[in-house]
Amino acid sequence: MKNIGLIIEYDGSEFHGWQRQPDSPTIQALIEDHLTEVTGKKVVVYGASRTDSGVHAEGQVAHFTASDTIPAERWRAILNFRLPSTIRILHAEAMKPNFHAQKLVLSKIYDYRILNRHSASALDRRVLFYPKPLRWDLIREAVPLFLGEHDFKAFQNAKSAVQSSIRCLLSFELFEDYKGLYRFRIEGTGFLKQMVRTIMGTLLEIGEGKRDPKDVTKILASRDRRLAGRTVSGSGLCLVSVRYPLSFEQYRI
Amino acid sequence: MKNIGLIIEYDGSEFHGWQRQPDSPTIQALIEDHLTEVTGKKVVVYGASRTDSGVHAEGQVAHFTASDTIPAERWRAILNFRLPSTIRILHAEAMKPNFHAQKLVLSKIYDYRILNRHSASALDRRVLFYPKPLRWDLIREAVPLFLGEHDFKAFQNAKSAVQSSIRCLLSFELFEDYKGLYRFRIEGTGFLKQMVRTIMGTLLEIGEGKRDPKDVTKILASRDRRLAGRTVSGSGLCLVSVRYPLSFEQYRI
Repeated sequence: MKNIGLIIEYDGSEFHGWQRQPDSPTIQALIEDHLTEVTGKKVVVYGASRTDSGVHAEGQVAHFTASDTIPAERWRAILNFRLPSTIRILHAEAMKPNFHAQKLVLSKIYDYRILNRHSASALDRRVLFYPKPLRWDLIREAVPLFLGEHDFKAFQNAKSAVQSSIRCLLSFELFEDYKGLYRFRIEGTGFLKQMVRTIMGTLLEIGEGKRDPKDVTKILASRDRRLAGRTVSGSGLCLVSVRYPLSFEQYRI
Repeated sequence: MKNIGLIIEYDGSEFHGWQRQPDSPTIQALIEDHLTEVTGKKVVVYGASRTDSGVHAEGQVAHFTASDTIPAERWRAILNFRLPSTIRILHAEAMKPNFHAQKLVLSKIYDYRILNRHSASALDRRVLFYPKPLRWDLIREAVPLFLGEHDFKAFQNAKSAVQSSIRCLLSFELFEDYKGLYRFRIEGTGFLKQMVRTIMGTLLEIGEGKRDPKDVTKILASRDRRLAGRTVSGSGLCLVSVRYPLSFEQYRI
């Protein structure tokens, strides 16, 4: 048996996220179902990130176990032939047996894009369209307050029940890629459910002048979900890449 | 009567280009038909560039004449409400009477994007997907040979009958935006029918080692369409912006 590593790009607009759901199309379910069909055996695909409904990926990482009969690189063409054009396997490689796409993750990097202008985009689906005027100077002031290790309980889906809500943000930067297109790049050792989208909702309220940038510190300390901003749509969120102790290439056999 | 200037973004994938055609959906026809419906009078929209079938725009410029009853900026919302989401009016402004979107053009800037990797893109429709390996060093050698004033007859649609096929390329640069995504930015005083797409087809043949970079000079001198490369798809082409003697803002009333 071989350990096959995948790097996957997808436009999440039409999917209910990565993780298999009983009755909705998900990226994991589509890939698993095609692999099961091709191999005649039930295949499980482990992904680095359980991206939410509508969230995109430029570099989702996953792995599965397959028999030796098919050369590892062939899986790219086999899957791309069967998957919809909004999911593309960029790489399929034979990996060392110890490579695990989920368990070995050191950090994940996401982009959140906000299109802050009068008109929506005709060309880019990976944005949150936000026509209201925003004070970007205030948003820039708030961003660094999220950096480092914090209890992010206030920025977590209220229904979620993880053991610890302490997470560490390694970097959080803001770029203006073109006029009106603001891109937040965020790297963290782990993220709680809806955490990035709730941070973004809070930053938008700061940009609208409804909250003070300094409130971020108070909201973090409160650990109270009701004090943070709303959870914005997943449409602006994209998983950029995943960091492991070694690079993806170094895990190749 | 008022002169209304427009800046328009579109995903050209589903349209038969800018210019009105008898039986196919075009961007000009859609905008004109909505304006005619709203005003009750036949409206003609003049565009800076007659982009071909499948070609996209980030900054097409156009103008039309309308009565004074509707404030100029309202046309943005009126049109965006009626147009498909793949066409967006970014700006609608009252312009000085002498502004003409087509006649005053000094130069036009286009991007042509080639995705040169194993897998197509799940996220970006504005590319030509080209999985064959290419010698980008040879392509880089050929690019500057197109610069300046030349008779581009060899790079023109063979059926086209313009008076002069002499055009001037003001700049022609190549960027690698991300791994495998090559973007050519080309600025010229004018372009012949299919000129950029035939230049691109020729560069691809150079990248495949089928032609020598130095052949560019010979092909230009020949003025023979049969000597140039094939005309590639419009899917990778995007009108970025249009230059006038004054900036768009400076023509505003």
